[in-house]
Amino acid sequence: MHFDFSDKTQEYIDRVQAFMDKHVYPAIPVYEEQHAKDRWGVMPILEELKAKAKAEGLWNLFLPPNAEHDTEEYRGAGLSNAEYAPLSEIMGRVSFGSEVFNCSAPDTGNMEVLHRYGSDAQKEEWLRPLMAGDIRSAFLMTEPLVASSDATNIETSIVRDGDEYVINGRKWWSSGVGDPRCKVAIVMGKTDPDAERHKQQSQILVPMDAPGLKIVRMLPVFGYDDSPHGHAEVVLENVRVPASNLILGEGRGFEIAQGRLGPGRIHHCMRTIGAAEVALEKMAKRLLTRQAFGKNVADHSIWEQRLGEARVEIEMCRLLTLKAAYMMDTVGNKVAKNEIAMIKVAAPRMALKIIDDAIQAHGGGGVTSDFGLAESYAKIRTLRLADGPDEVHLRSIARNEFRKYRDAEYPTHKPESGIQWD
Amino acid sequence: MHFDFSDKTQEYIDRVQAFMDKHVYPAIPVYEEQHAKDRWGVMPILEELKAKAKAEGLWNLFLPPNAEHDTEEYRGAGLSNAEYAPLSEIMGRVSFGSEVFNCSAPDTGNMEVLHRYGSDAQKEEWLRPLMAGDIRSAFLMTEPLVASSDATNIETSIVRDGDEYVINGRKWWSSGVGDPRCKVAIVMGKTDPDAERHKQQSQILVPMDAPGLKIVRMLPVFGYDDSPHGHAEVVLENVRVPASNLILGEGRGFEIAQGRLGPGRIHHCMRTIGAAEVALEKMAKRLLTRQAFGKNVADHSIWEQRLGEARVEIEMCRLLTLKAAYMMDTVGNKVAKNEIAMIKVAAPRMALKIIDDAIQAHGGGGVTSDFGLAESYAKIRTLRLADGPDEVHLRSIARNEFRKYRDAEYPTHKPESGIQWD
Amino acid sequence: MHFDFSDKTQEYIDRVQAFMDKHVYPAIPVYEEQHAKDRWGVMPILEELKAKAKAEGLWNLFLPPNAEHDTEEYRGAGLSNAEYAPLSEIMGRVSFGSEVFNCSAPDTGNMEVLHRYGSDAQKEEWLRPLMAGDIRSAFLMTEPLVASSDATNIETSIVRDGDEYVINGRKWWSSGVGDPRCKVAIVMGKTDPDAERHKQQSQILVPMDAPGLKIVRMLPVFGYDDSPHGHAEVVLENVRVPASNLILGEGRGFEIAQGRLGPGRIHHCMRTIGAAEVALEKMAKRLLTRQAFGKNVADHSIWEQRLGEARVEIEMCRLLTLKAAYMMDTVGNKVAKNEIAMIKVAAPRMALKIIDDAIQAHGGGGVTSDFGLAESYAKIRTLRLADGPDEVHLRSIARNEFRKYRDAEYPTHKPESGIQWD
Amino acid sequence: MHFDFSDKTQEYIDRVQAFMDKHVYPAIPVYEEQHAKDRWGVMPILEELKAKAKAEGLWNLFLPPNAEHDTEEYRGAGLSNAEYAPLSEIMGRVSFGSEVFNCSAPDTGNMEVLHRYGSDAQKEEWLRPLMAGDIRSAFLMTEPLVASSDATNIETSIVRDGDEYVINGRKWWSSGVGDPRCKVAIVMGKTDPDAERHKQQSQILVPMDAPGLKIVRMLPVFGYDDSPHGHAEVVLENVRVPASNLILGEGRGFEIAQGRLGPGRIHHCMRTIGAAEVALEKMAKRLLTRQAFGKNVADHSIWEQRLGEARVEIEMCRLLTLKAAYMMDTVGNKVAKNEIAMIKVAAPRMALKIIDDAIQAHGGGGVTSDFGLAESYAKIRTLRLADGPDEVHLRSIARNEFRKYRDAEYPTHKPESGIQWD
Repeated sequence: MHFDFSDKTQEYIDRVQAFMDKHVYPAIPVYEEQHAKDRWGVMPILEELKAKAKAEGLWNLFLPPNAEHDTEEYRGAGLSNAEYAPLSEIMGRVSFGSEVFNCSAPDTGNMEVLHRYGSDAQKEEWLRPLMAGDIRSAFLMTEPLVASSDATNIETSIVRDGDEYVINGRKWWSSGVGDPRCKVAIVMGKTDPDAERHKQQSQILVPMDAPGLKIVRMLPVFGYDDSPHGHAEVVLENVRVPASNLILGEGRGFEIAQGRLGPGRIHHCMRTIGAAEVALEKMAKRLLTRQAFGKNVADHSIWEQRLGEARVEIEMCRLLTLKAAYMMDTVGNKVAKNEIAMIKVAAPRMALKIIDDAIQAHGGGGVTSDFGLAESYAKIRTLRLADGPDEVHLRSIARNEFRKYRDAEYPTHKPESGIQWD
Repeated sequence: MHFDFSDKTQEYIDRVQAFMDKHVYPAIPVYEEQHAKDRWGVMPILEELKAKAKAEGLWNLFLPPNAEHDTEEYRGAGLSNAEYAPLSEIMGRVSFGSEVFNCSAPDTGNMEVLHRYGSDAQKEEWLRPLMAGDIRSAFLMTEPLVASSDATNIETSIVRDGDEYVINGRKWWSSGVGDPRCKVAIVMGKTDPDAERHKQQSQILVPMDAPGLKIVRMLPVFGYDDSPHGHAEVVLENVRVPASNLILGEGRGFEIAQGRLGPGRIHHCMRTIGAAEVALEKMAKRLLTRQAFGKNVADHSIWEQRLGEARVEIEMCRLLTLKAAYMMDTVGNKVAKNEIAMIKVAAPRMALKIIDDAIQAHGGGGVTSDFGLAESYAKIRTLRLADGPDEVHLRSIARNEFRKYRDAEYPTHKPESGIQWD
Repeated sequence: MHFDFSDKTQEYIDRVQAFMDKHVYPAIPVYEEQHAKDRWGVMPILEELKAKAKAEGLWNLFLPPNAEHDTEEYRGAGLSNAEYAPLSEIMGRVSFGSEVFNCSAPDTGNMEVLHRYGSDAQKEEWLRPLMAGDIRSAFLMTEPLVASSDATNIETSIVRDGDEYVINGRKWWSSGVGDPRCKVAIVMGKTDPDAERHKQQSQILVPMDAPGLKIVRMLPVFGYDDSPHGHAEVVLENVRVPASNLILGEGRGFEIAQGRLGPGRIHHCMRTIGAAEVALEKMAKRLLTRQAFGKNVADHSIWEQRLGEARVEIEMCRLLTLKAAYMMDTVGNKVAKNEIAMIKVAAPRMALKIIDDAIQAHGGGGVTSDFGLAESYAKIRTLRLADGPDEVHLRSIARNEFRKYRDAEYPTHKPESGIQWD
Repeated sequence: MHFDFSDKTQEYIDRVQAFMDKHVYPAIPVYEEQHAKDRWGVMPILEELKAKAKAEGLWNLFLPPNAEHDTEEYRGAGLSNAEYAPLSEIMGRVSFGSEVFNCSAPDTGNMEVLHRYGSDAQKEEWLRPLMAGDIRSAFLMTEPLVASSDATNIETSIVRDGDEYVINGRKWWSSGVGDPRCKVAIVMGKTDPDAERHKQQSQILVPMDAPGLKIVRMLPVFGYDDSPHGHAEVVLENVRVPASNLILGEGRGFEIAQGRLGPGRIHHCMRTIGAAEVALEKMAKRLLTRQAFGKNVADHSIWEQRLGEARVEIEMCRLLTLKAAYMMDTVGNKVAKNEIAMIKVAAPRMALKIIDDAIQAHGGGGVTSDFGLAESYAKIRTLRLADGPDEVHLRSIARNEFRKYRDAEYPTHKPESGIQWD
């Protein structure tokens, strides 16, 4: 067990950090200006940044080498999950940071799915432009009418009809749908509601312009629209796609979903840690530059306690996330499942506490948009729900503990351990 | 000590509740429709509701009887703070509920100030239309450049120049300024920065259309604009008003501010309790109507614990708030200061926890606007900062404790209390 | 609703407080000395204090007037639960305080049971000496082998055999059994395990010297023996008592238990609040008399926050406890059940947090016996378990909430509430 | 960065675990029996276990290789801090586990001090028998009269008088003094109260039988005596020792203390993690073997949440502790200072929460001694105070954060970031 980054990782950290410093941070005001002019449009500055990152080989960093599926045409930067994780944290400090390096959700997950399970034709049509950063994509899983953390609840139907599949259903939290570059969605639905629990679901590719696919609305998140990305409610009404759009085969949707979630959670957690670091930095700076009751607010010990706690929590979360990434690389996503569940719970909670403290340190400025804290809070608050609420993950971790002792015997009490008396 | 409402209070509770049930709740969709059409306009439905409430004598309920200041023309409904408090909770369940009864902030505080300290001319010009519900008003206190919880930090200047005062400064969190009916602001500033700490400040009436008063922007709260009310950043640049607009006299601004805060905090806390009750109700309903992992979510005991805790916390907070109101009525705002500080800290915290749990219970729906929870969270989060952050109030409560024992002697240790040994 | 004590209550508060100041506090070192000499003996100083309190009419204050059951011979001081509650807090500041006024558990509960349900002979034999303070008693309910919070789990058997009942079982947490003055126990067991759930249990009087009743050991509580009171594990092996020792009748044990618990919980909670006040006072004094890093520890703002929080929590808990007492007096123990469950959860938790902070403020002195804090923590920690763990009470409170909305309809989502888009 | 143990570490883990399983766990009842007979004596079983561990080369595992100070005679097992850390966790699961391997506090710290700073004569006299496990030792630092977390407060005087030093002072929390094998103490005091802050203190060796050294009492921790170890209050009255007993030189006491604390904290934290694992295991087993309200308590989801949280917190703490150990090995105790402070705060807090939950899961059994949980809680509660309270460590971590931004500029607000309005 050792706790230094490898030379390779450190080199990538330095390169990504340098790129952020040189190109991304200076571009923030430009981005904000372009965004203010056209919230739901394409930001030219972002395309410029992407071109630069691609040119420097800082591109598709998220996609781990995969002997079985890598080909000349479809191949990431060759970093393992553990090598990519610290980069994800650095990108996560800026809202559009990950996209600059073609590493943003849900494209990352969709690319992984296509890379692993896509047919050649599917790859050619969708994976190629995704890896090139030419288009973006969506993942339509969650449904408003049922508790979707229990996958057997899903109601969207995918019915074979000749050479086509016909899709009907209602989805929401379809993230990224607001972006004009979003051209395709992977849709989760049931091809056979009567099959056994985890063989009912399938995943299928649906072009965003398919007739019958209708964006009902964009969901506000604590009042934010998260444009141009956006989180949509989408209705699919007799949407027809070629049968060849089905991924991997009927009844394999659950299996695909399982494989998908691990890396994405690592990315989200590392970005969340980045956001927590930003909040901690802002909190410290604000406290150092305000006076109240005759002294610097930083000198009030209540804030020392909060900053101290924040640092402790960040360090612990980061280590656990890195360990989960390491396990995915070494023992596989399946064995790492427990650790992935742990960070899924731990990271957002940690960040929310720190951001909330930072808000408090900023006074009225904290809840408004001047410092980005409220927006960060809102964004991370969704992570306690996305991909299954905390409660479901804690339940799964607990069951793992209980499993160790299922048949254990245990004493009810120990009369011999009392106080000598009388 | 007894814990039943008086007949008078109960009668008002019943009347306000009946009015809410009959008129206000059915009006919510109308309000939302009108609001969707013109966010920053006057909502006709609200004016209709106000007329009805006024006709039924449910009007200006917040203004306690005040022998010294009540006159034929300026007089509230005759309810004490303790009698009004439970009504405030009922109104607080609906976002525009208080305004229906002409009981919404910051008008309530401004009316109280004018009622108590205004000259006859000031009353005629501003108190009369405020009490009639014809106009609305603002209170300009907090400044972005300094920690305003320490009143000596305030930088806005109010300088006498002949028959006028000239005002220069920058304010924010000027709530209600977005409303087209908002016609006047009470502005806090310094007339004499060299006077002793609490004699430097004055309060002055400034018409919203005074030349030099400029609304710089509306502040988002999280991502909400709180329209048509709104929270503004306002610049005052050589704003000139007649000298007669000064309230009470130079150097009395701090004194006026102190008197103002007590009742407003009771109202805010009771409305907050109302919001917490709404969240608890929604949480219960949601849990009862969702299934996961083979049973009703309400039957998972983690939710039993959270609902149980929520009920306990609400009950405790309500009692303390009612006690603070009672003390204001019986021993005065000054003696009740400690209790008011307590509820100022306790109520928002309690509500935020419950609303956050309710969000969690709603899954993805919780963070969006479908159930009003995220908006409620954002609104109440500001209360941990408005009128002084939690830390300042806890400090003042603690100092009250320390004061009891200032010269106490206390042993360092007690050698005689050890274990018999040797 | 009002928040001042009645004249009668205030007079009793003053009298009890004066008695504590004049007699009880000065007696503490004497008590400690006598206790050090004979941990499990009778402390002569306590008997002296009892005689004084009785002479002053400060005796059996806990027993509310009860038109149905009061007689010339068996009658308490005539205080309602609400009137007694604040006295209980004052007594609770000293470990043996309640006993001085013949108000200590479990005698209070046992006296109430006998007062309400005892036969004339049972009263003559046991209630008379208990009310006179001549003997003490125990209540044998909890069992080590089963989760006793679920009363149907109880395994002790009470079997009729001619004119006698034969009792077999194992009990623990039989509090007070260590006291040489403890002469009788009320034992809960099952007379008919096949009856419906709440008709299986009965309660029966068992003299402590009954053959077959064996004290197995005294249970340490975080290392404390709580002598001379003590918490015992007791085995009952073919213990025979006259059939007339059964209270109220077969199958009525659960009913008796229900009636018993309310007042006892009020007493425990108010004593707990007293203990919290003591901890807060000690914390303040310690912080005021220690220096670190160039200033008084009391001036470090982290401690201001903790003291402030402590005061808020104490005030809220006290009000809820007083309300629960008030409801018991006005609407009866059954209707007040929900409020009683709330304080049962809220008070110990509040006190533990404050005591723990006080321990922290005392440094190493806090965990030892020099300041009584660790002992107080240990004692109150048991209250989160005694008479049912927190979880069971929160569950019952939650179910009360859910019940309100059992058949409610609730929307799954609201498509019309999204962001205007496209 | 990788997260597997090295082969060497894993081999030691396996050996220590095997030794625990084969020898230590089976010896627990023997130990308890011997302890019950003679609380403050030498337990023969422990000496047997020590002999076995020594014979197997599992001895002095805690002492890292140190090129500068290792000699043929004085040398540990050759494990780095990172290699030893996981062993410490395994030992920490049993109260006397560390001592079996001659790895228990405060001997470890004392041996390190002597190893690094002791003269040849000091080593010969005290280090040799300590490393052989023939004697034990104490460290006398904390004083009851002052806040000892601020080392400049220390009042014990060490005054040169000819060839001797004369020591006067009062110490407490002198751990291990109760053990009959405890033969020597290292005493911290001031040789020059007028020197600069961190040059006033010195450390000196004092035989426990030196005339004038008097054990005043043993301190109970909560109600436990921690025999035969014990925590003493000690008075030193004109205690005279040869001048050659001074360690390293006058004025170097603070420097020695700084070097001492790092490894000890790692050990304590890892043992604490061991204790947390034990509590988690017991909690799971208890919940699996109790029924309430018609189902296994383990199936109530509130407990799933608590177990899940426990596992997450343990994993995070362990990683941070291992990282701190790793840093001590690679960059030195001084650079690792911040990480050491973090685990000092994080580990006890984490364990206390888990143990408290485990207590709750055990019902009444939890607070008594039947399951060892209350004792574990008491012991670990002291760690939030020993070697400086949490507040002091969090302060130091926070100052490290603030230092990064001392001269940072930071905006007060951003008027351009508002809502488009009007």
